Amino acid sequence: MNINALEKTALSIRALTMDACQKANSGHPGLPMGAAELGAILYGEIMRHDPSATDWPDRDRFVLSAGHGSMFLYSILHMAGYKDASMEALKNFRQLGSKAAGHPEYGLLKGIEATSGPLGQGVSMSVGMAIAETMLAARFNTAKQKIVDHYTYALVGDGCLMEGVSAEASSLAGHLQLGKLIVFYDSNKITIDGSTDIAFTEDVAKRYEAYGWQVLKGSMYDFNEIASLVEKAKAEGGKPSLIILKSIIGKGSPHKQNTAGIHGSPLGAEEVAAAKEALGIPAGEAGEFYVAPEAKAYFAEKAPLWQKEKAAWDALFADWSKENPDLRKTWDAFYAGGFDNAGAALPEYKIGDSIATRAAGNKALQALSLVWKNLVGGAADLKTPNAVGLPDSEGTYTPEARVGRYIHFGIREFAMACICNGISLHGGLRAFCATFMVFADYLRPALRLSALMNQPVVYVLTHDSIYVGEDGPTHQPVEHLASLRAIPNVLVLRPADGEESTEAWEMALERKDGPTCLCLSRQNLKVFEKQCPVWKKNMRKGAYVALDTRKVDDKGDSNEHLDVIIIGTGSEVGLALDAAHLLQAKGKSVRVVSMPSRETFETQDAAFRNKILPKADKVLVAEAGIRQGWEAFTSVENILCMKSFGESGPAGKVAEHFGFSPEALAAMV
Amino acid sequence: MNINALEKTALSIRALTMDACQKANSGHPGLPMGAAELGAILYGEIMRHDPSATDWPDRDRFVLSAGHGSMFLYSILHMAGYKDASMEALKNFRQLGSKAAGHPEYGLLKGIEATSGPLGQGVSMSVGMAIAETMLAARFNTAKQKIVDHYTYALVGDGCLMEGVSAEASSLAGHLQLGKLIVFYDSNKITIDGSTDIAFTEDVAKRYEAYGWQVLKGSMYDFNEIASLVEKAKAEGGKPSLIILKSIIGKGSPHKQNTAGIHGSPLGAEEVAAAKEALGIPAGEAGEFYVAPEAKAYFAEKAPLWQKEKAAWDALFADWSKENPDLRKTWDAFYAGGFDNAGAALPEYKIGDSIATRAAGNKALQALSLVWKNLVGGAADLKTPNAVGLPDSEGTYTPEARVGRYIHFGIREFAMACICNGISLHGGLRAFCATFMVFADYLRPALRLSALMNQPVVYVLTHDSIYVGEDGPTHQPVEHLASLRAIPNVLVLRPADGEESTEAWEMALERKDGPTCLCLSRQNLKVFEKQCPVWKKNMRKGAYVALDTRKVDDKGDSNEHLDVIIIGTGSEVGLALDAAHLLQAKGKSVRVVSMPSRETFETQDAAFRNKILPKADKVLVAEAGIRQGWEAFTSVENILCMKSFGESGPAGKVAEHFGFSPEALAAMV
Repeated sequence: MNINALEKTALSIRALTMDACQKANSGHPGLPMGAAELGAILYGEIMRHDPSATDWPDRDRFVLSAGHGSMFLYSILHMAGYKDASMEALKNFRQLGSKAAGHPEYGLLKGIEATSGPLGQGVSMSVGMAIAETMLAARFNTAKQKIVDHYTYALVGDGCLMEGVSAEASSLAGHLQLGKLIVFYDSNKITIDGSTDIAFTEDVAKRYEAYGWQVLKGSMYDFNEIASLVEKAKAEGGKPSLIILKSIIGKGSPHKQNTAGIHGSPLGAEEVAAAKEALGIPAGEAGEFYVAPEAKAYFAEKAPLWQKEKAAWDALFADWSKENPDLRKTWDAFYAGGFDNAGAALPEYKIGDSIATRAAGNKALQALSLVWKNLVGGAADLKTPNAVGLPDSEGTYTPEARVGRYIHFGIREFAMACICNGISLHGGLRAFCATFMVFADYLRPALRLSALMNQPVVYVLTHDSIYVGEDGPTHQPVEHLASLRAIPNVLVLRPADGEESTEAWEMALERKDGPTCLCLSRQNLKVFEKQCPVWKKNMRKGAYVALDTRKVDDKGDSNEHLDVIIIGTGSEVGLALDAAHLLQAKGKSVRVVSMPSRETFETQDAAFRNKILPKADKVLVAEAGIRQGWEAFTSVENILCMKSFGESGPAGKVAEHFGFSPEALAAMV
Repeated sequence: MNINALEKTALSIRALTMDACQKANSGHPGLPMGAAELGAILYGEIMRHDPSATDWPDRDRFVLSAGHGSMFLYSILHMAGYKDASMEALKNFRQLGSKAAGHPEYGLLKGIEATSGPLGQGVSMSVGMAIAETMLAARFNTAKQKIVDHYTYALVGDGCLMEGVSAEASSLAGHLQLGKLIVFYDSNKITIDGSTDIAFTEDVAKRYEAYGWQVLKGSMYDFNEIASLVEKAKAEGGKPSLIILKSIIGKGSPHKQNTAGIHGSPLGAEEVAAAKEALGIPAGEAGEFYVAPEAKAYFAEKAPLWQKEKAAWDALFADWSKENPDLRKTWDAFYAGGFDNAGAALPEYKIGDSIATRAAGNKALQALSLVWKNLVGGAADLKTPNAVGLPDSEGTYTPEARVGRYIHFGIREFAMACICNGISLHGGLRAFCATFMVFADYLRPALRLSALMNQPVVYVLTHDSIYVGEDGPTHQPVEHLASLRAIPNVLVLRPADGEESTEAWEMALERKDGPTCLCLSRQNLKVFEKQCPVWKKNMRKGAYVALDTRKVDDKGDSNEHLDVIIIGTGSEVGLALDAAHLLQAKGKSVRVVSMPSRETFETQDAAFRNKILPKADKVLVAEAGIRQGWEAFTSVENILCMKSFGESGPAGKVAEHFGFSPEALAAMV
């Protein structure tokens, strides 16, 4: 180890951080300056990576869980040669359009492994990445070639450790014996409000030991110690490791280090100058966005070594591919991220079959999972109620069986979703998770990150309305369809019967650039006849015509007057069909539209929208949730919806109590 | 202790549970049967309570955190003589309208201290109750009389302990040295998916020791042991206690105990019969909804003792009242839950003053808090950014200063909100909490419970839009206004300037039956002239006229043609006013409506709604969030809103990027 070069690299992290924050007049210098040494040794000595091949599947992963310290990442990535982390990006830190955004954003700058900033989630995603590594290693490594063999690192601060989600994920990581997960704790004892003593005095080391982790302690400012602690962490194959590094927030700032003031504000020109002087950085222009020549030289030497290491892996991978052509084919399919649904023995239904969409979803999942061999996931202790079991052949993921595909997440919804994000981010695998829809609230911050990071995680949310029944209002979602739809880039699908459930699962898997919520019923629903011959195609556009009581041509259009359109989703499509028959008996012409994805429908062109929703005297909407957003389709009084929380009672009675009956719906005309 | 009576009481809990679940054909018998002994000793021997005075302020509190085991609570409350837990209620367990709902619902059945079922939240609320006890004790107890002196108990299962929120709350409880908090852990090692070994193998005892708790262990089935452990817990004044009781889920069911099958399903008639036979409960009608005569006799003897204890407290309270008339006056005001805002030295603004609504909110809070002396709260490590500091005179709540009013919750949003629910439920205090609006997602499940339980907790949510600026999309709410509005019984207020911020805080405190979200800006906003003379009154109805460029009469009405109405909220009201002036210059007549609470406005009668929103050629809406729900006011293309996540950059540039400029808004006409 070239200690001098590492010191100069750390110094340069401090320099770049100070200047970037100062120039942006915004940002969080405290962490990058306090943990600069870790950045230097991590990217210089510890990690196996190649800045010229950021998509190397077997690279080590690093997640900056304390994402506010983004300059930690940008400055070291810059010096290490990640080209997105250009000097221009750094000089435009936190400016519109810059790759160096306020918090690290996945996809914006290659070298960022996960979007972070919402505390606790980064480290939880790193657990997912570590799980993914073991899963892929178990599938693809052979006795001769270990083509998957890397570590996952994360850096957490006090904030990440206070957040409950990190506790959930860490407990599971200990249980799962993720020996290749190594988490550094930047223990500087300062948060925004001041000393951690005001709110956080627990024994973190003891807590992590209780989770089954190896806990190691050292100083942030001793390179040899850090190196040896990492060796110890690597040597412990059966436990994840927490390396607690005592540090000083904002180290290098003579007057502001070790104070809360440096956490989230630029130092100010005067203090920057004082810090540079103290650190021996040239004054004036020569010291602006300073990278020490020793640091430059150090990384210039590293580049060919990294490339050599990558080339060695390429050669290994080529040998492996030659010797294991079938495995290689699977690998390619895993990493291309797609399989052909046509190969799946999808369930078939007869009109009139009665099946809950959660159960139908499970049939689809079971069939598709045998084709989508890279799909892994599970539920938060609700495997049977959520109906997300995989075929027995696929096994359960345990420390002894890394090849298993079903993950028991425990009653940890939020960590579950973060872990799925991590698995998805890792590459090679697709992930799904499941809980009751009402508890989507528990995992919502992770769903938001799935959407923001364009990760196609599938969220199976069952028990999707007051039809939950007896469990009552704590377990009956009413605002959840609206609140899920509100998140940009989330595909919310509420299938209306068994057939739609199959399509919904297919759509979720076909999606590449964002999460899908499958909102599924607890109760049985009748499989109904779809009048539209291309309903599957139209469902992908958000809505289709389930029934039109008029005489229609082969395109589904009609010249006859239309009295009523009823738009429904999920279980309320059946309700709408029943109401339509009542209305038809009274001589009304009625169209029923199933709209499994309102947002998708709304983004279609006017021609399609008008085709599905032609002129009619009246448009009704039926959905057993609050009405928010349906006002775009009809006036408020024409929406059959929930206006309050639900009630405990048998589902049918609860539904009747809230006016969800075909008669009540028909009476709205 | 009458062990025989306690045994028979436990047996009766089992009997009532089996029959209630069987009759409902639904429910969770596992916990009540497994922990029946704890129910018996808790309500029979340990707790200081009086079923005939359920609102006794100094009663011990008990929270069934594992709320699915609701029959645990209903059956023991029934036997103890809580009249809402009538035999009729038990026989209608989980039926529509029954007080014995699927999960315990606060307010529905007196004796339930908190709505529970969403796991982890119950125990977190109990932390809030324990905090409230210390706060009130510090304020009201005298050297002579301890009128506030009770314990808070909770029962958790494996699920509660896996949830991150319980980790957050427990860490804080340890830090705060809540010696009068005693949590029982029903350790049965079974969850829905099977053995806890599949996902939860951490050392819970060690973890709680790491939090600074006293951890005690015993058997669920040894009354003497439980009694002595509780004595030990009470003797430890400086630490909360976790009492781990090894138990057998569903104990008493010969074939189903100790299996996951009994967690959440009735036993079936055959197994009920077998269990009753094994337990010595009469067969047939005599054994239906069986309460052992020994249990009846036991509680019949207890009733007068409890009443005597309550009477003793009444006498103590009377003495205390006589000797401390001022304290008593304060006490009454605390418990009546209201103070007169008129007494507050509220901030005053001049038109044109520039102040962020978070800062203005703080001025209002500081002034109101000196009147509302029972208001306590704090932020999740964002005291300054959220601007929720209280006057220095009010102090910080610490183990050494229980009288302090500002609570450092740490970076634990979810626990923070649960704790506020607990403080509010306890009675005597009002609670507020604060975080960035985007992280309302982290605490959302607790906000939902505030709403469901009708608790007037105030949620201060600052940094309410893309105007957050540089921190970028992870920190910029876009879907949050919509998603908060979606929750029934949540008052969402987005004040537009300093003056509205004061009103918003007043409205939040005036509210008695549900939570309020104060959505406040990071950026400065100009205080604007309100054309409507009764704007404060109308703001309480959701909206008022900020500007009308026409000639209006003294009621604010006009006969002149109205070209445009622009509805705005928060920072977009200023934008609307600027746009209005641009339009006015072009000869258009314009009305600007500030609508701080859309939902409140929507519930007003048509006369008021039409008065605020009269006929106009065009209605525009401006809000820097997604549009969901605004479709009720105008067509989609007339809504200036966000359609995606935000971007990192200076706020002004980000806003411009997304089209939030007076020119762009005016151009929509």
